[in-house]
Amino acid sequence: MSEVSNVARPSGRAANALRQITLTRQFTKHAEGSVLVEFGDTKVICTASIEDKVPGFLKGKGQGWLTAEYGMLPRSTHTRMDREAAKGKQSGRTQEIQRLIGRSLRAAFDLESFGERTLHLDCDVIQADGGTRTAAISGAMVAAYDAFAKLQAQGVISAIPVKQFIAAISVGVFKGVPVLDLDYLEDSDCDTDMNVVMDDKGHFIEVQGTAEGVAFDRQALNQLLDLAQAGIAEIITKQKQALAI
Amino acid sequence: MSEVSNVARPSGRAANALRQITLTRQFTKHAEGSVLVEFGDTKVICTASIEDKVPGFLKGKGQGWLTAEYGMLPRSTHTRMDREAAKGKQSGRTQEIQRLIGRSLRAAFDLESFGERTLHLDCDVIQADGGTRTAAISGAMVAAYDAFAKLQAQGVISAIPVKQFIAAISVGVFKGVPVLDLDYLEDSDCDTDMNVVMDDKGHFIEVQGTAEGVAFDRQALNQLLDLAQAGIAEIITKQKQALAI
Amino acid sequence: MSEVSNVARPSGRAANALRQITLTRQFTKHAEGSVLVEFGDTKVICTASIEDKVPGFLKGKGQGWLTAEYGMLPRSTHTRMDREAAKGKQSGRTQEIQRLIGRSLRAAFDLESFGERTLHLDCDVIQADGGTRTAAISGAMVAAYDAFAKLQAQGVISAIPVKQFIAAISVGVFKGVPVLDLDYLEDSDCDTDMNVVMDDKGHFIEVQGTAEGVAFDRQALNQLLDLAQAGIAEIITKQKQALAI
Amino acid sequence: MSEVSNVARPSGRAANALRQITLTRQFTKHAEGSVLVEFGDTKVICTASIEDKVPGFLKGKGQGWLTAEYGMLPRSTHTRMDREAAKGKQSGRTQEIQRLIGRSLRAAFDLESFGERTLHLDCDVIQADGGTRTAAISGAMVAAYDAFAKLQAQGVISAIPVKQFIAAISVGVFKGVPVLDLDYLEDSDCDTDMNVVMDDKGHFIEVQGTAEGVAFDRQALNQLLDLAQAGIAEIITKQKQALAI
Amino acid sequence: MSEVSNVARPSGRAANALRQITLTRQFTKHAEGSVLVEFGDTKVICTASIEDKVPGFLKGKGQGWLTAEYGMLPRSTHTRMDREAAKGKQSGRTQEIQRLIGRSLRAAFDLESFGERTLHLDCDVIQADGGTRTAAISGAMVAAYDAFAKLQAQGVISAIPVKQFIAAISVGVFKGVPVLDLDYLEDSDCDTDMNVVMDDKGHFIEVQGTAEGVAFDRQALNQLLDLAQAGIAEIITKQKQALAI
Amino acid sequence: MSEVSNVARPSGRAANALRQITLTRQFTKHAEGSVLVEFGDTKVICTASIEDKVPGFLKGKGQGWLTAEYGMLPRSTHTRMDREAAKGKQSGRTQEIQRLIGRSLRAAFDLESFGERTLHLDCDVIQADGGTRTAAISGAMVAAYDAFAKLQAQGVISAIPVKQFIAAISVGVFKGVPVLDLDYLEDSDCDTDMNVVMDDKGHFIEVQGTAEGVAFDRQALNQLLDLAQAGIAEIITKQKQALAI
Repeated sequence: MSEVSNVARPSGRAANALRQITLTRQFTKHAEGSVLVEFGDTKVICTASIEDKVPGFLKGKGQGWLTAEYGMLPRSTHTRMDREAAKGKQSGRTQEIQRLIGRSLRAAFDLESFGERTLHLDCDVIQADGGTRTAAISGAMVAAYDAFAKLQAQGVISAIPVKQFIAAISVGVFKGVPVLDLDYLEDSDCDTDMNVVMDDKGHFIEVQGTAEGVAFDRQALNQLLDLAQAGIAEIITKQKQALAI
Repeated sequence: MSEVSNVARPSGRAANALRQITLTRQFTKHAEGSVLVEFGDTKVICTASIEDKVPGFLKGKGQGWLTAEYGMLPRSTHTRMDREAAKGKQSGRTQEIQRLIGRSLRAAFDLESFGERTLHLDCDVIQADGGTRTAAISGAMVAAYDAFAKLQAQGVISAIPVKQFIAAISVGVFKGVPVLDLDYLEDSDCDTDMNVVMDDKGHFIEVQGTAEGVAFDRQALNQLLDLAQAGIAEIITKQKQALAI
Repeated sequence: MSEVSNVARPSGRAANALRQITLTRQFTKHAEGSVLVEFGDTKVICTASIEDKVPGFLKGKGQGWLTAEYGMLPRSTHTRMDREAAKGKQSGRTQEIQRLIGRSLRAAFDLESFGERTLHLDCDVIQADGGTRTAAISGAMVAAYDAFAKLQAQGVISAIPVKQFIAAISVGVFKGVPVLDLDYLEDSDCDTDMNVVMDDKGHFIEVQGTAEGVAFDRQALNQLLDLAQAGIAEIITKQKQALAI
Repeated sequence: MSEVSNVARPSGRAANALRQITLTRQFTKHAEGSVLVEFGDTKVICTASIEDKVPGFLKGKGQGWLTAEYGMLPRSTHTRMDREAAKGKQSGRTQEIQRLIGRSLRAAFDLESFGERTLHLDCDVIQADGGTRTAAISGAMVAAYDAFAKLQAQGVISAIPVKQFIAAISVGVFKGVPVLDLDYLEDSDCDTDMNVVMDDKGHFIEVQGTAEGVAFDRQALNQLLDLAQAGIAEIITKQKQALAI
Repeated sequence: MSEVSNVARPSGRAANALRQITLTRQFTKHAEGSVLVEFGDTKVICTASIEDKVPGFLKGKGQGWLTAEYGMLPRSTHTRMDREAAKGKQSGRTQEIQRLIGRSLRAAFDLESFGERTLHLDCDVIQADGGTRTAAISGAMVAAYDAFAKLQAQGVISAIPVKQFIAAISVGVFKGVPVLDLDYLEDSDCDTDMNVVMDDKGHFIEVQGTAEGVAFDRQALNQLLDLAQAGIAEIITKQKQALAI
Repeated sequence: MSEVSNVARPSGRAANALRQITLTRQFTKHAEGSVLVEFGDTKVICTASIEDKVPGFLKGKGQGWLTAEYGMLPRSTHTRMDREAAKGKQSGRTQEIQRLIGRSLRAAFDLESFGERTLHLDCDVIQADGGTRTAAISGAMVAAYDAFAKLQAQGVISAIPVKQFIAAISVGVFKGVPVLDLDYLEDSDCDTDMNVVMDDKGHFIEVQGTAEGVAFDRQALNQLLDLAQAGIAEIITKQKQALAI
């Protein structure tokens, strides 16, 4: 991106600055992979569980499957949300997010090379401050990697079936200025909100941009994508550091 | 867009060619607005219904609301799908699409200027051949306009609260070549699938791009957006012709 | 029926006059049978889909099954109805109607002679003006016939397993006079409402009569059945004309 | 009816003979009206409960409402049925029956003369041997009467708002012969099954006839209605005896 | 128990007196075991149904299963409750009770000795006056015994797989005094409510005590357990008398 | 308790030893009270949220309400459980536990003294190793206290409406020996499992004991209650230390 614009972000961050990002592995003990991912005050527990069977539509095809679910603790948010299990259904937003997580992670791993197994990714938000879906995707990448590493260590598979690292970030136009990694205050008050998933070659897996109030033009789109690309590269570096690879 | 690439599309269309698009107003008689929209063999009934109340969160605020629902007849598709009403829930895909339609149309109209009323958009696919969500958005624009025109004719509102015309189209990379307005055969076999919603100034309302199998780079993204922009301009022209404005 | 009574029907029809009835085959392209049936302003899409399996209770018995589902587009009616898929359940009325359609059509075809297959009939009302269930049954007869004809043409079955043609019509007592084929205005204001399904020999498959406000006597019942019998014979003639048999 | 046909009924009953019918009032102690109705081995508990409010669509209109629900204990039947509360929904058959009970009883009472109250009729089958819906309607008539009598005794209403007594019976063609009041063995093996609801003047409230396998002609219909009319008159006599009126 | 305290119970019973308890076998005719159990005015129909298969988690293990369901007729209670089948779900209370009944009865029978069969216990309250769950457990014991006796009589199993008789009773602190077998008036106004399930050796299967308002001390607990033990012994005697064993 | 029995507990703990218990306040930032409670490897997030309204049945009565919900992250357990929000309902176990938590905490606070407000307690298990419900109750006590303290600090209420401190622990008979605070290995292999909730005076709020396999006698019950009483006293000390009161 040509230059970084000036904007008074609530957090005092520069327009192109990520929040503090941490990835804590082995956060819980039962899951094959378990990561607490933090994007500033946004905290998501990502677990990866291996199950030794595949959904019906894949039975007997010799390949694996990867699927994701997403949830928020009722008081992960500013005001308490109703519990989806108690309401008896997942909201449209929840389903949209978990479909996005699943598609993104299926782009990272080779489903054909780990046998008739399912990798379940569960991303549960314990504290929300904007960007929960991008934190979830970025953390799930590490949890999934760990789970496959465990399978490899057990001799079940010969190699970790990773095709490419992927990560995600949100970008948006806040008070007229494109900024990286929106927190809740920015997210609630921005004109354009975009979630971007990219791989470690800087190619796109998903681009989801929404005008909030004001439509955005091609130039703004390009500035946002520049910010996202740089941010995602940083996150992938952190993922690899966390995994020590 | 620089130049149109050559690709053997199943339909024989040029890479930048839309399918035959028709918008039939007053398709059914009860709704305030009722449009049959056809993008080639994709056929969607879009109705716009005015209700004289708003959801709870808007009560007493003096403004209106616009919401959308989407459905497919069970045999609108190649093989019969289960009926969502019989299964007792809408799929994640259905919810994702109806949320997209609602957001897109809320960008087209001024919710503050038609009183405490709700405009319900129902988009029901009677025949599917790819691009049902973009056809639905493009047809709903006309149905909504008609419904507001009826309110205006009744003297209920003084002007049609349109802020801008919007339309939507899908684009994708088919056999390595960016193409406009994917039909079912292309959609099932493409590398990248993108739905774009734009306004009549060529600005973006929504961009939703997904890599299918292969991640896409910035150049492909730009070619796809060029195709979409030109296609949407054509559709908006057709919308205005249909409305004789 | 002895003589036709005089009554000022809203439509100006004679007491024993059907509305304009049309049966448009191949209305949509994917289903094995697809018929748009119109009884005046009542319009129902009836599709017949062949599935190569049967429900659990019939597995291994070597016979087929036929089942029906019914739905209304939310704004097929004067005021918008809630979408059943969004509410998460089908109303009692919907279930009652689809059970009636299924029973009626199972009387028309020989379930034992088309192998372990299921014929799914989907009847979706796109515009309602009274008599949607009887239109659905009458249209589904043609759609089912077409679907079986397709199976026969493919050499899958040697003959169309039709036992008899069936059709349905509503009759009622409107302002004291028995009339045939109630439209919405009559239906909302009648004393007795009866739906009759008969075969091409003039025998009964179903008789469902309900007093609305005033109980009806045996004479009124007989007059209504006379009207229904003549009306159904007309509809069956139209079915056969549509099928060119 | 002209003459009674000969048929070997499993129960040894004459073709026009009802089963033993008993109506036990005050069967349970909490409900305003509570009747155990027995049609032979079919046993249904009918309770009538008065609630001091009406559904939303009637609020402020100064009139009452009457509604009915129907259920079967899981092992009221030959083989155990799944419990509807555990499955999370009522079957289509259940809904159809409870709609029929509600419509029938609304024909018996004057909804405008008991204030903004709802009469809830609950018909729960504790043992099924055919004819549960007609037993339920016949028993609910007495339970409802008792509940209104209680309101009258309390001085809440000045008169029991009964317009007419109603009762119901099933008739059918069993082994080619029209018979009255089918038990389970007959019901499972009959050609035509008809449920009839009539008032104490011999007029029809509901006629629901279904061909099982073989369509029925006008003569059979007439014979069945003759049987039903005589049977219902007997049941209404028993209702009045039970109520000592 | 040391001595029986004096308290003015609404029923006039002594603190250690059970209500009149009756167990009527063969109450309905279809179930393998069918018992009407009455604890005073509390009346519960308990049926035991044998099904020739087991749940998935037990398939192929050569053993049986026993499960229970519980329900209340809507007007079994003082004011009408909503029907759970109509609401589409069982309340937490219902589930808690049916889990308790199932656990208790599984302690009474040897699941390993009656083959791959499931015993379904259905406990349906037709009149409630306190203590429905303990009546249900005590009645289900007899219904289950009868069902197994039928299997034995048919030569399917060689012996009734009973390990021990079990029964249940409620105890509570009413107006400061520990009392046995609370009726509704006591139950609504007591400080502590405890349900106890014991076997015929006086050992505990379940103890569930809840402080209502005031916490209870060890001494009160001991007095309540003494009352329960004596009461349960009486009930088990009645169970054996009813079964004539 | 007289003396501590010897048993080889998998953890090496003495029969009367609690696991390491920690209560971390302010664990998440949005909730009025937020506690991470750990009983060894069992980890539960307990949040307390104040809402300024009460359920319908309490409206206008001037008092408050307290309610609890419980959930487990899908991979908090050894093998992944299905997500309840995705299944569309909470299990019977979940409902039983959240009812227990709610009843227990309602015994700790004076509902009449904090106005028409609802305290929502959400207990979400992020790692399970036995005893999740007792950890949840013990942690929720602290979270609720914190939430009320916040209300007091804001001047909304004049005092924290605590009546008494309460805590909970599980006890059971493991390999014939009564032990305190079962972990997962013990819980899966014990003969008797009991959950006890007590207040700071050593009185009982809840006692829920279940025989697993073998019924337990009065002596075992007494030993278990002795263990529980001592354990709960320790936990209440820790609660007060955590709160620095």
